[in-house]
Amino acid sequence: MGHEAELIAALRRIATEPEARGLLDDAAVLDMGETKLVFTHDMIVEDVHFLPSDPAGDVAWKLLAVNLSDLAAKGARPVGVLLGYGLRKDAVWNAEFVEGLSRALSAFGVALLGGDTVALPADGPRTFGLTAIGAVTGVVPSRSGARPGDIVWVSGTIGDARAGLRIARSERGGPDSLLERYRTPRPRLEAGQRLGPIVSAMMDVSDGLLLDSGQLAAASGVRAVLELESLPISADYLTFAGEDRGARMSAATAGDDYELLFTTPEDRAVEVLALSEELGLPLSRIGRIEKGSGLQLLDRGEDVPLPAQLGYEH
Amino acid sequence: MGHEAELIAALRRIATEPEARGLLDDAAVLDMGETKLVFTHDMIVEDVHFLPSDPAGDVAWKLLAVNLSDLAAKGARPVGVLLGYGLRKDAVWNAEFVEGLSRALSAFGVALLGGDTVALPADGPRTFGLTAIGAVTGVVPSRSGARPGDIVWVSGTIGDARAGLRIARSERGGPDSLLERYRTPRPRLEAGQRLGPIVSAMMDVSDGLLLDSGQLAAASGVRAVLELESLPISADYLTFAGEDRGARMSAATAGDDYELLFTTPEDRAVEVLALSEELGLPLSRIGRIEKGSGLQLLDRGEDVPLPAQLGYEH
Repeated sequence: MGHEAELIAALRRIATEPEARGLLDDAAVLDMGETKLVFTHDMIVEDVHFLPSDPAGDVAWKLLAVNLSDLAAKGARPVGVLLGYGLRKDAVWNAEFVEGLSRALSAFGVALLGGDTVALPADGPRTFGLTAIGAVTGVVPSRSGARPGDIVWVSGTIGDARAGLRIARSERGGPDSLLERYRTPRPRLEAGQRLGPIVSAMMDVSDGLLLDSGQLAAASGVRAVLELESLPISADYLTFAGEDRGARMSAATAGDDYELLFTTPEDRAVEVLALSEELGLPLSRIGRIEKGSGLQLLDRGEDVPLPAQLGYEH
Repeated sequence: MGHEAELIAALRRIATEPEARGLLDDAAVLDMGETKLVFTHDMIVEDVHFLPSDPAGDVAWKLLAVNLSDLAAKGARPVGVLLGYGLRKDAVWNAEFVEGLSRALSAFGVALLGGDTVALPADGPRTFGLTAIGAVTGVVPSRSGARPGDIVWVSGTIGDARAGLRIARSERGGPDSLLERYRTPRPRLEAGQRLGPIVSAMMDVSDGLLLDSGQLAAASGVRAVLELESLPISADYLTFAGEDRGARMSAATAGDDYELLFTTPEDRAVEVLALSEELGLPLSRIGRIEKGSGLQLLDRGEDVPLPAQLGYEH
């Protein structure tokens, strides 16, 4: 077991309250009566989660977006955020960060409520933490409710952000649309709130569709069967990466999508498709839930061996 | 203006919601009807907020304690915390941190609800963030309610933790009691909850009594007059630092006390003193609030010039 896995296991042993959901879910949930409050906290570190060359404003946007994506997966409307800012003495970078944060807060309708700033040692990597607070009236979806017979769905398109990372790293050229998917993801807040009452299970796709689908299946005690040919892939991605099985597999194991992965009973399919049309957001049927455990991958009905790496854990 | 001050000013400009309290208070407050939820987030960085030689378990304790101290200042009972953990590959240190956190969570009756772990670059300083969530039924005290005629009070004793830091740094020897005040502070949670309905203003003393008193006075639009001879100083501190004015001034400008600084109208003094007796915690009258602005320091009735540095901003 690696150092991080060992640490997480130790933290799980001391997070024994039901609200913590065993630290296995996207967020903690506090029951305040009619309203449930949802909390999530993510940290990002320079050279680990973002590139020193990424524009500061985009780093701020992404920090907010990835946390709001966790709220979206809980069907929550965002209420506010607390920011932890480990800063270096770089006035231009700091000002651009605040500008980007301000743009993102406005775009998503969220308030900055508080936080902390700390000066880092001169050589310390920039480090940020963000706590997002959301509210849900009604049931809060979890990862563990998928049942045999359910349909597996995903929102938007997958793989774009990973292609964008390759462009950001100057590994090769490509369209700005892919770079934007990497740098300024758009959490599916409205879709999450509308889907909350319909789904049997929901989570966000942040570590790779295959990895995350496996986690949803494990949390639910079921088997997920995904159809590679049904994955929603953008035209830009196809142009960038090609249309063969390898390109699709690469999209399915790419991280940073910040789309919603969810399951519903078969008889909710019409509602999901109507919602997709109303929101102008693809909600694609990508597989089904069966009895058993683990993950199975098909390509036009043919069994495809799972790749060694199912995604990227952040 | 320094880089951090400039950043904070920029963040204040975008934190325009009333719940954020202009980022000037110890915590953000969300009104959930009968219950108010209180949120605070602090970050700590190795070599800035703690020493590489500090025991890992004590670092965890202190991280929790300093955030709970902010909740105490709001009269809140702690509900739960989210942890951001920037880790290095040091299994023993990480295990000791989790053990210390577990001890502190039990001691203060708080649940670990969630968070995030991130692996740091090899040379990055260990960095932690903690978000604490508290609940208040009734009025949430602020820094801004002090009125002319009010009494200024402080809980416990001040200066001990700063003396403890000198011991931790091996600048000189001294009793374990002072070292403990530095490494494992005890947030005044019960006192805070009991004082909440009585005080006109309250905050915690974390940056130095003089600095924090000045901030309370500024937030309230009043003048604070403190009596140096009335400051509560422990016997251990007096043995360690001496009894002269310099030693008292040093205690008054020391950080890391995590005591409660509060004001009440004169007619609540009997209640405060009764509470002090009930809790077995000194609650000492250290000055008064007057019309005007700023901070005035007296020593047995004689005006004492304010030192150049009123405290340590974290």
